[in-house]
Amino acid sequence: MINKLVIYSGGMDSYTLLNELYSGLDDIAELYAISFNYGQKHSKELVYARNVTEELNISHRVVDLRGIFSLGGALLDDTVPVPEGHYESETMRRTVVPARNMIMIATAVSYAASIEVNEIFYGAHAGDHAIYPDCRPPFVSAMNLAISEGVYKPPRLTAPYINMSKADIAMVGKNLGLDYNKAWTCYNGREKACGKCGACQERVEAMHYASVLDPMEYE
Amino acid sequence: MINKLVIYSGGMDSYTLLNELYSGLDDIAELYAISFNYGQKHSKELVYARNVTEELNISHRVVDLRGIFSLGGALLDDTVPVPEGHYESETMRRTVVPARNMIMIATAVSYAASIEVNEIFYGAHAGDHAIYPDCRPPFVSAMNLAISEGVYKPPRLTAPYINMSKADIAMVGKNLGLDYNKAWTCYNGREKACGKCGACQERVEAMHYASVLDPMEYE
Repeated sequence: MINKLVIYSGGMDSYTLLNELYSGLDDIAELYAISFNYGQKHSKELVYARNVTEELNISHRVVDLRGIFSLGGALLDDTVPVPEGHYESETMRRTVVPARNMIMIATAVSYAASIEVNEIFYGAHAGDHAIYPDCRPPFVSAMNLAISEGVYKPPRLTAPYINMSKADIAMVGKNLGLDYNKAWTCYNGREKACGKCGACQERVEAMHYASVLDPMEYE
Repeated sequence: MINKLVIYSGGMDSYTLLNELYSGLDDIAELYAISFNYGQKHSKELVYARNVTEELNISHRVVDLRGIFSLGGALLDDTVPVPEGHYESETMRRTVVPARNMIMIATAVSYAASIEVNEIFYGAHAGDHAIYPDCRPPFVSAMNLAISEGVYKPPRLTAPYINMSKADIAMVGKNLGLDYNKAWTCYNGREKACGKCGACQERVEAMHYASVLDPMEYE
């Protein structure tokens, strides 16, 4: 039995991933979760992440990366509005925080070494490929190579949803009987989800295709 | 002409590297430096880094990574003494902060994107290979692959001293006429360098082999 660590944003993909691993807990020595505060407007997702890990009694660490991500970009800067519309459009590139996943994975690797974790999971999926290069299979392979070259007892990096759509993920959650009210998706951190940003639109469509009733209230 | 960014610890290797690049400044559009506060006992090196970049009028950013490196280890924890003796010995493994270079490089990549830097330099050298896997050529290659897969307009990662000894680096500095009083090496952050930790011993030997008079005062 091995120790596993999930990079857990609090959104629906990593919420599903965490729960899928939790459902196989008998085969895991210890399950850990790590989240990142990078000054995101949607820091509400961290509250959701905290609530879920407390409910499941999973050791959860929130790492403060605001020192790194003080460089701007639409997801961080209050003066730049989050673009509305689909991820496919050019404007959504503004939501890219350069090397974000590389930083998060490197941090998870460092944490993994201290708690003797053998496998690190993150919830990248096929729908992210068009816009986020650090959610694509070649990036995962390259990071695994860098990890194996760069650290003693290298943990394996696994992205089990990387060739699945968000609708596929919603199906996984449906089969697990998950309550998606416990996953925050919206890039705007207001009281209710906006329903208009790329993240919300993607979620709504995924729920629709998977025939999951989204319990989230939208503005 | 391209923009270049140096990962600059304030120690003698990156001090030499910064100055070597500075000496070729006519071929560089803009030279930047980035340092990291990871809660190291030898944070004195950051003061040295600041002084040098101010003197050379190089844009210098210190990134606070203490949120990441709150996990312990001899270089961070005041209750764990820094081991004395050569890097080769097993005890020096305690000075390894897992994935430290991966985190620093990933952060530098993120910063590079915001200032349109084309090449990132770091001062890994052959003497580090035995203990620090993230100072070896295969790690640099793997990181370059991960960078090129993971970010738009990927900067190149270059470690020009990676097959040189520390004595070779001291020779470069000698030829440039550098004042090594401006580089802090000791892992203990006391007023004077201890002369006993692995970092000090390595420096003293390098200076000796390169016939450079080390102006540093030792305890």
